[in-house]
Amino acid sequence: MSPQSSPISLAGLFPPIPTPFKENGDVDYDHLHSNLNRWNQEPLNGYVLGGSNGEYVFLTPEERVETVRRVRQLIPPGRLLIAGSAMESTRDTIALTRRMAEAGADVAIVVTPSYYKGRMTAAALEHHYRLVADASHIPVMLYNVPANTGVDMPAQVAINSATHPNIVGLKESGGDVAKIGFMVQETPPDFQILAGSAGFLLGALAVGAVGGVAALANIAAAPLARMVEAFHRGDMAGARKIQLHLIEANTAVTSRFGVPGLKAAMDMLGYYGGPVRSPLLPLSEEDQAALRKVLVKAGLL
Amino acid sequence: MSPQSSPISLAGLFPPIPTPFKENGDVDYDHLHSNLNRWNQEPLNGYVLGGSNGEYVFLTPEERVETVRRVRQLIPPGRLLIAGSAMESTRDTIALTRRMAEAGADVAIVVTPSYYKGRMTAAALEHHYRLVADASHIPVMLYNVPANTGVDMPAQVAINSATHPNIVGLKESGGDVAKIGFMVQETPPDFQILAGSAGFLLGALAVGAVGGVAALANIAAAPLARMVEAFHRGDMAGARKIQLHLIEANTAVTSRFGVPGLKAAMDMLGYYGGPVRSPLLPLSEEDQAALRKVLVKAGLL
Amino acid sequence: MSPQSSPISLAGLFPPIPTPFKENGDVDYDHLHSNLNRWNQEPLNGYVLGGSNGEYVFLTPEERVETVRRVRQLIPPGRLLIAGSAMESTRDTIALTRRMAEAGADVAIVVTPSYYKGRMTAAALEHHYRLVADASHIPVMLYNVPANTGVDMPAQVAINSATHPNIVGLKESGGDVAKIGFMVQETPPDFQILAGSAGFLLGALAVGAVGGVAALANIAAAPLARMVEAFHRGDMAGARKIQLHLIEANTAVTSRFGVPGLKAAMDMLGYYGGPVRSPLLPLSEEDQAALRKVLVKAGLL
Amino acid sequence: MSPQSSPISLAGLFPPIPTPFKENGDVDYDHLHSNLNRWNQEPLNGYVLGGSNGEYVFLTPEERVETVRRVRQLIPPGRLLIAGSAMESTRDTIALTRRMAEAGADVAIVVTPSYYKGRMTAAALEHHYRLVADASHIPVMLYNVPANTGVDMPAQVAINSATHPNIVGLKESGGDVAKIGFMVQETPPDFQILAGSAGFLLGALAVGAVGGVAALANIAAAPLARMVEAFHRGDMAGARKIQLHLIEANTAVTSRFGVPGLKAAMDMLGYYGGPVRSPLLPLSEEDQAALRKVLVKAGLL
Repeated sequence: MSPQSSPISLAGLFPPIPTPFKENGDVDYDHLHSNLNRWNQEPLNGYVLGGSNGEYVFLTPEERVETVRRVRQLIPPGRLLIAGSAMESTRDTIALTRRMAEAGADVAIVVTPSYYKGRMTAAALEHHYRLVADASHIPVMLYNVPANTGVDMPAQVAINSATHPNIVGLKESGGDVAKIGFMVQETPPDFQILAGSAGFLLGALAVGAVGGVAALANIAAAPLARMVEAFHRGDMAGARKIQLHLIEANTAVTSRFGVPGLKAAMDMLGYYGGPVRSPLLPLSEEDQAALRKVLVKAGLL
Repeated sequence: MSPQSSPISLAGLFPPIPTPFKENGDVDYDHLHSNLNRWNQEPLNGYVLGGSNGEYVFLTPEERVETVRRVRQLIPPGRLLIAGSAMESTRDTIALTRRMAEAGADVAIVVTPSYYKGRMTAAALEHHYRLVADASHIPVMLYNVPANTGVDMPAQVAINSATHPNIVGLKESGGDVAKIGFMVQETPPDFQILAGSAGFLLGALAVGAVGGVAALANIAAAPLARMVEAFHRGDMAGARKIQLHLIEANTAVTSRFGVPGLKAAMDMLGYYGGPVRSPLLPLSEEDQAALRKVLVKAGLL
Repeated sequence: MSPQSSPISLAGLFPPIPTPFKENGDVDYDHLHSNLNRWNQEPLNGYVLGGSNGEYVFLTPEERVETVRRVRQLIPPGRLLIAGSAMESTRDTIALTRRMAEAGADVAIVVTPSYYKGRMTAAALEHHYRLVADASHIPVMLYNVPANTGVDMPAQVAINSATHPNIVGLKESGGDVAKIGFMVQETPPDFQILAGSAGFLLGALAVGAVGGVAALANIAAAPLARMVEAFHRGDMAGARKIQLHLIEANTAVTSRFGVPGLKAAMDMLGYYGGPVRSPLLPLSEEDQAALRKVLVKAGLL
Repeated sequence: MSPQSSPISLAGLFPPIPTPFKENGDVDYDHLHSNLNRWNQEPLNGYVLGGSNGEYVFLTPEERVETVRRVRQLIPPGRLLIAGSAMESTRDTIALTRRMAEAGADVAIVVTPSYYKGRMTAAALEHHYRLVADASHIPVMLYNVPANTGVDMPAQVAINSATHPNIVGLKESGGDVAKIGFMVQETPPDFQILAGSAGFLLGALAVGAVGGVAALANIAAAPLARMVEAFHRGDMAGARKIQLHLIEANTAVTSRFGVPGLKAAMDMLGYYGGPVRSPLLPLSEEDQAALRKVLVKAGLL
């Protein structure tokens, strides 16, 4: 195995990009291309592929790898490609992580296994991440998203995993800034924590997160980048103003309307959102109207 | 599509059999064979493959299909082969369900999709099951197991799905006998509900369940069959005595120690349990001792 | 202290009676009287006062005691008066339990303290119940109702408390019949468990409960009594038929519409239901119509 | 009724002070006095009495009022006295709120009713708060603490209540800074939100909270005040350093060890902590040792 020796920076903004589908449900690589052409103009530091917003659980491993391979060709130097490579089993996760490295991913992001909730103890999760990181040819990020998995990774898992030379960070989507602060305090400075949603991004930056992987960054990169910049130059009032202005829109494309909401918002804003895969259902007309209103209120539409 | 027209009986006892692995983690078909040789002597009505106890989330689709193909050859006529064919997406579930039919499964059992918990509304679940049942060449069972999925399928989903000619029943692992009774009451007589655990099997029979898919049936088929028989001949006192005697052992191989506990119990009782796949961890020695004590107390060891 | 030495039977049906209020919110003792006159004609084994359905958390200790004192005068010999005497603190619970004994209660029922959820360990609960039972002049019942308290009393608390000479039983409202069966198995024969809702009453009887404290018994004592009787004479088919017929109505006056639903149903059925105390809100007209439909469907109206 | 017309500032730090008890369990007013003498020297903006840390659920209304009356005499001008006046019913809450005003409280803080969890809808909570605020002679704060109540007040309740002239703010203990930011955005500028715990205080300030009601402020007022000051003068790095340093200690006196932990910490630090009321249990020796270690690590001991 060859753990990454040179440090990699996860600081900044990373949209977890949705996977575009054609009407027949197949992956729509052409629209993936056109979306990226536009995102490449936005103030972003890279992309997360195969995350929750990428409907990764509906993709075959082949689709997941192929998407990474294509995107690698489409993004300019200096932008990171972070690829979701989690499967439920450790052995499948290792195999897919290796394929992602070959396909050109810079970093593998690995959501907690979750089916056997009662057995996903801190010890089990640490064991899993250690084996994956040992076997991976690229750096590994942990990923905690209890709203989807029903598992809330204990802080101690991150703290213990942070000493592994090939585990470089964590995407924390749980929204508990006290937990984020505690992990920042108890891990080495080179362990990098990213907020998993724009709704608590400023709160997370305040306690030491280095950036965010945020669904909202797909459609609001510019104001989010301005917020991060304001924060870093000490303009808390300015940062707060932007943060408060965006929370409702963030909720709309995450917990309120989910991936169907994010894709509908993209359609409204000139990206290709397109259909979701079943069992996700498309947004009702009533929900689309509510979404549109929120986007207008937030100044995004 | 060709929905099943002749009725199929799901009454009785069905162990959700564990998938045996070799020390290197590969599926161990030889031990699958030897276990089945023994189970075939037990008073069982069939087998569930690729359920939660089968560690299906750790198996590739190929392993899931191959297991079904092999088991089909190993079981005598008159025993049902119920195969788990769920994937997260509807399209993958349809594809796998068809492969299961070709591999010889009698019935497909389909656990609720669960990753996008907030969007798995009754409407989404009903839509999913309808599409799967439309496309399946074999009858379909619903499967609700909130402890693993974090989704609790509303009763209304079963009630609405029960009118589909190719949806024949439900495995309910949630343990809420009021809900089971309500579904029995509100569905046609040919919609068959099975308790998903031996811990509440007698309670479920009392309100109209026709049997059980129970981890404990892997190691305690005889007493469970005696309990079911006592219930059906009106000997509630006899049935209750057996039920109460087995609850602690049932808990041990389910919520308390999980699949590692079930496999360890099988090893203690002369079956091949063998290792679990990571991230599940093997039972500690202390837990093994506690498990042994419970099995002895229950008269199983 | 003087623990009860002669055994007391908790077998049978006990409605947890609502506390009637006047339009101005005061306790309406006249209507309490008229309701009891009618309940006294029904096949019931006694009454629970000051339970969740009695809105006990909205009553002052004085109102709770006075209600017991009055009801004691209104019920015929042979019917038990079980009085809720729980406060959050052990010392207040002891004081109120003693007042309930003086006011004429036969048994005190004590819901788990719950405000400090994270600290209500098995040890804390056992300690609490032991102190209360030591100090009480009447027998004590445990009471577990997680839907209201957010605390689910571990089975071990009942098992350990059952050896106390002055702790005679448990009202279990959680609905987990595997847990009920386990507690029946692990406690002495004279420890009596009652189902806390009619929805799982037959399932609970099947595993050894001796009866039920059920909101539905306020308005459906006759069919529930026929169900219990059918169960005891071995007519499971007859018992099941009644059980299944009543589950939806039971849900309506418990989890679906709560105490406002129970009181509205009583008004519809010729009892005095009357208003609830705020912050409970009265049932909307739409909900009243839905409730009426359910009661008609169940043959109660 | 006479709603407060002049604005009242809730900005700053407010310890929710524990209620000291003698060994016999009675309220220990002498030690309350000595503790206040010391707190009065600390950089605090007032006190919350009868909150969760005050074990208010274990106090009689008389004890709650008497504590307020005494403390009113013991604190210097310019420090607010915020008194918990919640009961489960609206009518009892109104009565106690009025007594608190007479006893000298500046503000009443009213935790959400919670026993009938399923019925505590946004409409029910808004109705409750409106009636209480209408009747109160002093300004009213909302109080949301889901870890104790099992009810999570929707943001909309605060937003709708904020327009009431006598509702001045909210103590939010849920820790969700996205929710806090959303409420800041959607309420008038004079509606003041306080973080309910020091663990997420900096994150809450970042999105517009005006201060905190924090258990940790009982024992760490000075560093917390320095953090708030650093935040306000734009020194985020300095504020963050203090915040991260204190999270573990904050957890120790809240979710980890609860009120027994806070009282034990006070004993270690020269305040009078003393016993808790049962069913809370005192901290074990092992937990005391762990607590001591945390306090030393945080530089508090």
